[in-house]
Amino acid sequence: MVVELISVGTELLLGNIVNTNAAYLSERCADLGLSCFYQSVVGDNEERLTDVIKTALKRSDILILSGGLGPTADDLTKEVAAKVMGRELIMHEPSRKLIEEFFNKKGSKPTENNWKQAMMPKDAIVVDNENGTAPGVIIEAEGKKVILLPGPPNELIPMFEKNIVPYLSGEKSGIIYSRTVKICGVGESKAETMVKDLIDGQTNPTIAPYAKNCEVHLRVTAKAADEKEAKALLTPVLRELTNRFGANIYSMDKDTTLEKAVVDLLLDKNLTVSTAESCTGGMLAARLINVPGISNVYKSGYITYSNKAKRKILGVKQPLLENKGAVSKETAEAMAKGAAAISKSDVAVAVTGIAGPDGGTDEKPVGLVYIACNVRGKITVKKYNLSGNRAKIRETTVSCALILMRQCILKYDEEVAGGKR
Amino acid sequence: MVVELISVGTELLLGNIVNTNAAYLSERCADLGLSCFYQSVVGDNEERLTDVIKTALKRSDILILSGGLGPTADDLTKEVAAKVMGRELIMHEPSRKLIEEFFNKKGSKPTENNWKQAMMPKDAIVVDNENGTAPGVIIEAEGKKVILLPGPPNELIPMFEKNIVPYLSGEKSGIIYSRTVKICGVGESKAETMVKDLIDGQTNPTIAPYAKNCEVHLRVTAKAADEKEAKALLTPVLRELTNRFGANIYSMDKDTTLEKAVVDLLLDKNLTVSTAESCTGGMLAARLINVPGISNVYKSGYITYSNKAKRKILGVKQPLLENKGAVSKETAEAMAKGAAAISKSDVAVAVTGIAGPDGGTDEKPVGLVYIACNVRGKITVKKYNLSGNRAKIRETTVSCALILMRQCILKYDEEVAGGKR
Repeated sequence: MVVELISVGTELLLGNIVNTNAAYLSERCADLGLSCFYQSVVGDNEERLTDVIKTALKRSDILILSGGLGPTADDLTKEVAAKVMGRELIMHEPSRKLIEEFFNKKGSKPTENNWKQAMMPKDAIVVDNENGTAPGVIIEAEGKKVILLPGPPNELIPMFEKNIVPYLSGEKSGIIYSRTVKICGVGESKAETMVKDLIDGQTNPTIAPYAKNCEVHLRVTAKAADEKEAKALLTPVLRELTNRFGANIYSMDKDTTLEKAVVDLLLDKNLTVSTAESCTGGMLAARLINVPGISNVYKSGYITYSNKAKRKILGVKQPLLENKGAVSKETAEAMAKGAAAISKSDVAVAVTGIAGPDGGTDEKPVGLVYIACNVRGKITVKKYNLSGNRAKIRETTVSCALILMRQCILKYDEEVAGGKR
Repeated sequence: MVVELISVGTELLLGNIVNTNAAYLSERCADLGLSCFYQSVVGDNEERLTDVIKTALKRSDILILSGGLGPTADDLTKEVAAKVMGRELIMHEPSRKLIEEFFNKKGSKPTENNWKQAMMPKDAIVVDNENGTAPGVIIEAEGKKVILLPGPPNELIPMFEKNIVPYLSGEKSGIIYSRTVKICGVGESKAETMVKDLIDGQTNPTIAPYAKNCEVHLRVTAKAADEKEAKALLTPVLRELTNRFGANIYSMDKDTTLEKAVVDLLLDKNLTVSTAESCTGGMLAARLINVPGISNVYKSGYITYSNKAKRKILGVKQPLLENKGAVSKETAEAMAKGAAAISKSDVAVAVTGIAGPDGGTDEKPVGLVYIACNVRGKITVKKYNLSGNRAKIRETTVSCALILMRQCILKYDEEVAGGKR
């Protein structure tokens, strides 16, 4: 089955927003085993939208349109799609009631425009919108399916996950079921080499690698008659991947980020944490603190961008800074020692580096970063040579720090805590 | 003139990357006064790409294709575009030399594939790529222009700015010249109301408002015979906007972010700064520290997520935390006092709030945030009720903190420093 995406909205044509919906929908359609050969963006214009829908109907089986379902006169996706498909719009009583309730809850009154959102193409499937007033719509005709979704991602994504994924899975005989194996601490090309034989020999399940932000994600997808059968197909592949990547797998849960995995590990091992940052200037702490529940383990953070702050706050000695420099193995180590001492946390991680654009030398170029992780006195320091601009170097540094934290905590737990058990 | 964007790449159709090029190109084309009615994404497939180019040529004057100019056999944008336009490919000697030099500099040898990048459509304009090996190409025929750009944004953007903007400006009789008036501390709808009469009455220059991240940007664009005339057209409009928005305008420079404006202000007034963060957990510091040159003014940062850290590091008193709570006007004030005292910085900003998803109560709901700004002992505390999820609340808080810092520094400078002069 071939799917085609049509994003409707003048704000996309003006470049006011980036089309993240298209990336999300493409990725999910690929997961579902649907091929996508074309995506289009078109404005809220009847003639041009009609044109784009007609062209898409000629070359694709399923059309997913997003945007243009709002209450204003500008919004005409539903009207145009219905017209092209030869369906009249009629009042859809359940949608009318939902809109009424939505406004009652808010304590305000719907305007005449809002009722437009309850008009639906005849014989269409209407999909509830739990996060807004514009319902989704599915029109089926002559072997084609036209799916209309609201534009705001916080409405589109939940609706797609809850209603459209099951609908599209039902389209084929059987279901599609995926797990994502999330790997850190292994480079992209090495990871791909490590699974090349599996990818080459794959039929069902399939394995698709995605590299992002110092991580490699392997999406393993099975097609089967039902979920039980799909899971049974996945089990041996997931086991084989676990054999190959071992502790480098930090999660198999779609919603677990690397920082969440680190926080979960801290919570699980009952370890408190503190951060001392120079070049990343708070980004590491910010990423950790975006994980709800962090308050149980996070003690404190220090942003010691200047040498003076490194001395005064973390107690790094002046001769060390003079002899070895602020960006050095020794300074990173001293920062991690100092942070642990003043915060009395179990884990202290320290970052120092040259993010650029200035400050680099032949000996210490832009991108040179040292990260030290202190787990109850056992300090590991690692050196990195990163590339990219200032923002990219800082972002990569944070990912490297999270990976190092995870490795050091696991190693400590194995060597020390494990030995004591 | 109507422009149409065609992004070429299977990675876009699979959703592996987000199409930021389309947003960038759309925005810049709008700046140039070009209308964009359609955008398409298509894979590296000869038949489908041919189709998309032919359709676009029927409805648009200028086609901008991005991606698919690489050295591998997959990359066929140039080949397909040349074929559709009826041009044969011939070896382009200057491009061949540049590729040779590029590899010499890297100390490696080009492969057979790399020479493919020096083959150019006959009579095309070849545009140097200063950041990669794939040159840009412009093919002109029968009143249409087909512009081929490399896909990586760090190659596409500099090439577009340096070569394509002048080319497209030259296309029309005269030039397009824009300035962006960046406003903070005024809400989106208020700002739009304040300029409604100007927008309604506009012909040349035009004013286009964009709201983002607690800021409103007004892009003022003039069309004129030359830059001098364009600037003369802009001057009265920029003066009028300055009259209306006054000190809420933080910059008229395209590349100046809000954080850069704050850092520039600190540098200009010779004021050092420190940060104390609870719910934002380092994000405010991280945003400030992304500005190169910050090291001259940034003293230190404290991430005091827990009450204990607020007490121990910033000296917030236990009874205050108990009576007023960690999220209160008084705690924010005490944090800003403490941060200034220990860091001895001129400006100290403190943030405390409830980012959710848990921790909210009827009295103190999720989204309640207090920000305190201490400029040499003069402390201003502001209360905010923000909406969105945890990440959104934290991000908005950082923008609010930067805006408050800017206001407090300007006010201090006017009242105290100004009075002494």
